[in-house]
Amino acid sequence: MIGVGLIGTGFMGKCHAIAWNSVQAVFGDTPGVQLVHLGEMNQELADRKAGEFGFAKASGDWRSVIDDPQVDIVSVTTPNAFHKEMALAALAAGKHVWCEKPMAPTFAEAQEMAKAAAHSGKVAILGYNYIQSPAIRHIKSLLEKNVIGIVNHLRIEMDEDFMADGEAPFSWRNEVSAGYGALDDFAVHPLSLIHSLFGRVSRVMCDMSKPYAVRQNAEGSRRAVETYDIATALIHLENGVSGSLHVNRSAWGRKGRIAVQIFGSKGTILFDQERFNEVQLYLSSDEPALQGFRTMLMAPNHAPYGQFVPAPGHGLGFNDLKIIECHEYLRRIATGEGNVIDFGDGLEIERTVHAMAKSHASQRWIDVR
Amino acid sequence: MIGVGLIGTGFMGKCHAIAWNSVQAVFGDTPGVQLVHLGEMNQELADRKAGEFGFAKASGDWRSVIDDPQVDIVSVTTPNAFHKEMALAALAAGKHVWCEKPMAPTFAEAQEMAKAAAHSGKVAILGYNYIQSPAIRHIKSLLEKNVIGIVNHLRIEMDEDFMADGEAPFSWRNEVSAGYGALDDFAVHPLSLIHSLFGRVSRVMCDMSKPYAVRQNAEGSRRAVETYDIATALIHLENGVSGSLHVNRSAWGRKGRIAVQIFGSKGTILFDQERFNEVQLYLSSDEPALQGFRTMLMAPNHAPYGQFVPAPGHGLGFNDLKIIECHEYLRRIATGEGNVIDFGDGLEIERTVHAMAKSHASQRWIDVR
Amino acid sequence: MIGVGLIGTGFMGKCHAIAWNSVQAVFGDTPGVQLVHLGEMNQELADRKAGEFGFAKASGDWRSVIDDPQVDIVSVTTPNAFHKEMALAALAAGKHVWCEKPMAPTFAEAQEMAKAAAHSGKVAILGYNYIQSPAIRHIKSLLEKNVIGIVNHLRIEMDEDFMADGEAPFSWRNEVSAGYGALDDFAVHPLSLIHSLFGRVSRVMCDMSKPYAVRQNAEGSRRAVETYDIATALIHLENGVSGSLHVNRSAWGRKGRIAVQIFGSKGTILFDQERFNEVQLYLSSDEPALQGFRTMLMAPNHAPYGQFVPAPGHGLGFNDLKIIECHEYLRRIATGEGNVIDFGDGLEIERTVHAMAKSHASQRWIDVR
Amino acid sequence: MIGVGLIGTGFMGKCHAIAWNSVQAVFGDTPGVQLVHLGEMNQELADRKAGEFGFAKASGDWRSVIDDPQVDIVSVTTPNAFHKEMALAALAAGKHVWCEKPMAPTFAEAQEMAKAAAHSGKVAILGYNYIQSPAIRHIKSLLEKNVIGIVNHLRIEMDEDFMADGEAPFSWRNEVSAGYGALDDFAVHPLSLIHSLFGRVSRVMCDMSKPYAVRQNAEGSRRAVETYDIATALIHLENGVSGSLHVNRSAWGRKGRIAVQIFGSKGTILFDQERFNEVQLYLSSDEPALQGFRTMLMAPNHAPYGQFVPAPGHGLGFNDLKIIECHEYLRRIATGEGNVIDFGDGLEIERTVHAMAKSHASQRWIDVR
Repeated sequence: MIGVGLIGTGFMGKCHAIAWNSVQAVFGDTPGVQLVHLGEMNQELADRKAGEFGFAKASGDWRSVIDDPQVDIVSVTTPNAFHKEMALAALAAGKHVWCEKPMAPTFAEAQEMAKAAAHSGKVAILGYNYIQSPAIRHIKSLLEKNVIGIVNHLRIEMDEDFMADGEAPFSWRNEVSAGYGALDDFAVHPLSLIHSLFGRVSRVMCDMSKPYAVRQNAEGSRRAVETYDIATALIHLENGVSGSLHVNRSAWGRKGRIAVQIFGSKGTILFDQERFNEVQLYLSSDEPALQGFRTMLMAPNHAPYGQFVPAPGHGLGFNDLKIIECHEYLRRIATGEGNVIDFGDGLEIERTVHAMAKSHASQRWIDVR
Repeated sequence: MIGVGLIGTGFMGKCHAIAWNSVQAVFGDTPGVQLVHLGEMNQELADRKAGEFGFAKASGDWRSVIDDPQVDIVSVTTPNAFHKEMALAALAAGKHVWCEKPMAPTFAEAQEMAKAAAHSGKVAILGYNYIQSPAIRHIKSLLEKNVIGIVNHLRIEMDEDFMADGEAPFSWRNEVSAGYGALDDFAVHPLSLIHSLFGRVSRVMCDMSKPYAVRQNAEGSRRAVETYDIATALIHLENGVSGSLHVNRSAWGRKGRIAVQIFGSKGTILFDQERFNEVQLYLSSDEPALQGFRTMLMAPNHAPYGQFVPAPGHGLGFNDLKIIECHEYLRRIATGEGNVIDFGDGLEIERTVHAMAKSHASQRWIDVR
Repeated sequence: MIGVGLIGTGFMGKCHAIAWNSVQAVFGDTPGVQLVHLGEMNQELADRKAGEFGFAKASGDWRSVIDDPQVDIVSVTTPNAFHKEMALAALAAGKHVWCEKPMAPTFAEAQEMAKAAAHSGKVAILGYNYIQSPAIRHIKSLLEKNVIGIVNHLRIEMDEDFMADGEAPFSWRNEVSAGYGALDDFAVHPLSLIHSLFGRVSRVMCDMSKPYAVRQNAEGSRRAVETYDIATALIHLENGVSGSLHVNRSAWGRKGRIAVQIFGSKGTILFDQERFNEVQLYLSSDEPALQGFRTMLMAPNHAPYGQFVPAPGHGLGFNDLKIIECHEYLRRIATGEGNVIDFGDGLEIERTVHAMAKSHASQRWIDVR
Repeated sequence: MIGVGLIGTGFMGKCHAIAWNSVQAVFGDTPGVQLVHLGEMNQELADRKAGEFGFAKASGDWRSVIDDPQVDIVSVTTPNAFHKEMALAALAAGKHVWCEKPMAPTFAEAQEMAKAAAHSGKVAILGYNYIQSPAIRHIKSLLEKNVIGIVNHLRIEMDEDFMADGEAPFSWRNEVSAGYGALDDFAVHPLSLIHSLFGRVSRVMCDMSKPYAVRQNAEGSRRAVETYDIATALIHLENGVSGSLHVNRSAWGRKGRIAVQIFGSKGTILFDQERFNEVQLYLSSDEPALQGFRTMLMAPNHAPYGQFVPAPGHGLGFNDLKIIECHEYLRRIATGEGNVIDFGDGLEIERTVHAMAKSHASQRWIDVR
């Protein structure tokens, strides 16, 4: 039996809770999972959420979760600013840590976390759920089997519109204390896909911009926006692939887009997270008059789709990605295998984000390492 | 606390199990759910599945599940041929019944089930999950608000390809004892949507066909196929809408298609279950030069999407529909509300299916009632 | 040199004029085309249009066009009611006739036209342009090469929205003198595709409906609508294929949709005239994990695309279909070859339309012949 | 009457010929167009093409076309290397010049052409046909009416696959004498759209790459590729918009893609040349639960679509864009109006291309002017 602690019950906290409740029924091969202890900002909220999510105990103090001897794994789903303190405490208490991304506001803090994880003997990972979809695993398999030949170019875009309303008031997301903007909010996701499919980024040339230079604050006066909603980077990967990476959190109409275009010597692969049960593939080896992008609906022959539904084309949902991640994490803990991004890998992703920011500031190409 | 029994652990059995494991975490407002007792064909399988799905007890005899005093609700997910016997036994034992569709091979049996349910004082429903998606609920809301005016025509198609391989051997699905073919396999689904969105079908004119008249059986000899993989019907609804209904289980490339076209006096609505997180809408009231089908990605303002994900456009999965259904069922039990198709409604759907078959046989229009 | 006469200068008249102006430049292998004589309702309009379209002579009397000894071919593009008289006169005058579809309001008139053409020794064809696209020719080639195996089912829909506005006043299109409604306006087009790809329809079972039973006429009083904007038919083809045919001229949002679904024993073909530079194909022979509908963009290897553009995927337009038709017509005249629907074939299409109307009236299956 | 000369009869030569044959029939308001004189590399080819394209005279020497006193306008459709000499000669002979893009291999030559045009008193334009589509004109109108508010970001991609085959032999396109590669082949097209919709580019930061560093030449030995099939640039426009520009002529499966994403403060516009009869628009002002990208099919209310077809959604083709361009050119000559890119505007486009190349070479941001 594995005892689970959960800190935080917002978007990602609930997503973890659903995963912990379902992983066993979906995969059927996990150790018994026991929902032991839930932590929130106060006892009342903690009690309520523990009831909803099925946790046995609840505390208004997150340290109680970490100190609970029945807890083996701690899900950390609080805002970024708290990740380091909680992860370090959990590791120090001998717990495995499943921390939401990104790691921490500064690179130094992320380094500290990676170092702590490396020395802990425990498994500390980050919640990069988009790498878990059957589609991405299918793409990875296509690449490994050389189906589109040697990849030579890559374009990847991540766009949403939650900051697109210029009339919305100045918020903490517009303050420099929140980070760079779209770069740390979003860029880590496409970078997690690049990391998973291709490996490391070697060089970046980044440009950032602000759709709204000024916003009205709560009192009605106006205040200069300090963060960048849009970032675009030319990139080179260590494997020689060139490409570009785009993030925009003010892109009206985009809700969860992560559009990927992978160009190879024998074909092209397309993917969009807004339709993440589909992958498109063009093969130059198809008979000439029959060539075209084929739209592959995910199906049982695209693992682990079949664990969810035995019929093809019926579709997984966003929460299912976290269930897969949870299963991979349990595999990593049990066997050392498991397709997850641990703190060490996560540090490489954050290193790239910070290199992008530096590139924008200096207006030149930056080597990531 | 509500005690759950589950009979059957195949495609739908697992789907129920996942729903029972998750419904509380997703909705947060259900009574406590206790996974009490799982029944399968033998003790060994029952034990294994109980372990995977988190049920406390396991039996190789389904009657033990029904007789278990801790069980309040019985999920019946076995093949159709067993539905009547199990549902009747469960109702007789004072349990609520959640039975997979369709009700039973013959209309007489379905009538018997509906009658038993009506007299039981318990809540007996059918697993018509496609009516539960935020998209269908959104469409229902658009219709109720008269957004596309008065509906005048409807086309609905359900296609998959699991019988499309003509080289596949003769199977039980090709025997008349399995029913009519695609008509009972599939037609109930689009009919559940019609029932949910518009009400009853009044008249039908149906034509069925066999893509493969003969198949090879296991011993290598050939045998005439007795069921119809394809059925098409002209339909009239009680509300005056005309339309057509199409089912094809030999449609290569279709994996889970349920394509709906609803034509109204002020606009058109389109939907396809293969992309069930999207609804398309055309409004004649849009400014002329700006008219076009808009693709609406499901979002928190399309309930109950927000219970799963607070961010728009991130997507629900097939299993999430069953979680919603489970929640609606629990609401129905608790309050009498809840958007479900009970045995009485289900009987109307099956009545329509049998009318279609009769229409094909007699080659004429048939009044459903 | 071939001398061309044109009667009518509306939608189709202009389309013919553009084709006659361009066919030589596009195909490069036609006899010299001379735009000799244009006929319209009055001299002033005829003069103006002759100037625009590049015709040497103009008459306010269509008989002058037919009587012109320099005219070898007459394009008849006037409303249906005039087709018979003009075509017969032209044939009697020893001219080839290129007549817009459908042939004539009644079947008897169409028969008369076909008979006259058969006895004339001249080439009389109908303007079924949709059969001319590289996409349809490509589909025909796929079918002939057995790429999707034996076809077993067919669905075909033609929808536009020019009658969708219920507030629009009562018009001649709502009068029974205009014909059945969508059936003769539209059904001939999908039937021309069926004829071109598969051959004859043997049996039909049709249902028609009126989205608006009553419309306001010019004086403000209300008048019962006499024609049907919607028609749906179950169909059987002579080659054994079952299917359905749908037409709707009140389908909001549809502008030029002709959606075709062809199901075969080894694959499926999809097409939509609104994106007529694309064909979709699913092949069951593709590697299992790589199966999906491929979207083929028309290209030089889909003749006669390359006559228009040597680069793939650049797209033909609606008028280009008429240019191809013109070229096929000239080939038919010169060599007896040429992919066109002559009056004899056209009569079969109209026979089917009238059988549909009869089926609706009698509410039963009708044998076309 | 306007007399037309045509030099060159390849892809673009034929495209001009079709436009000259059709422009009058399509628009009906042009001066009479006389196809006077066609020039090709030798008399035989010239004679043959003059016959096909309907030109009265033919010469194996292009100077005869320019010297022909009946010729008022010269279409120059030969390879880039000849543009300058021919354009200058034509202008010197007092002819209007319609020259295919790009202007010339070097910026100095382009400058010379622009200067000659400015001093000629004649109208010299470039064949940037993509700016002519009803879709682009519609987008321009949306931008001018502020429908998506203030534009803040732009992404534009142009991809084809005619260089994607790594097994294809070394060709003149791989030699540095052919230019930079995709940059001059393709980048001028998206730049013409940017120029038409937004104005000038101010700064660029470009990165180029080679999918295949080496190709086999005809004799079987291997030779280093000197040009770049892929170029990506960060861009800033003079109006303050940030964005990126991508070109790839080795993108398997892309046939004529020019994908445009325009992000504004009140909405987003999407366009793809492979489906250039459609524009997508997202409006933040739509009712929240009804928001989504709407797909607008081009129609008579998107001028000049209606000149081609009076029915919506029937589609224009690639050659129709040149007919529109021809009409705009005739308007420019007649009235000084007309939406065309003259040599002066074209020079700005080429200035940007050369700045991109310089940016790649120096690995830094370059100011265009």
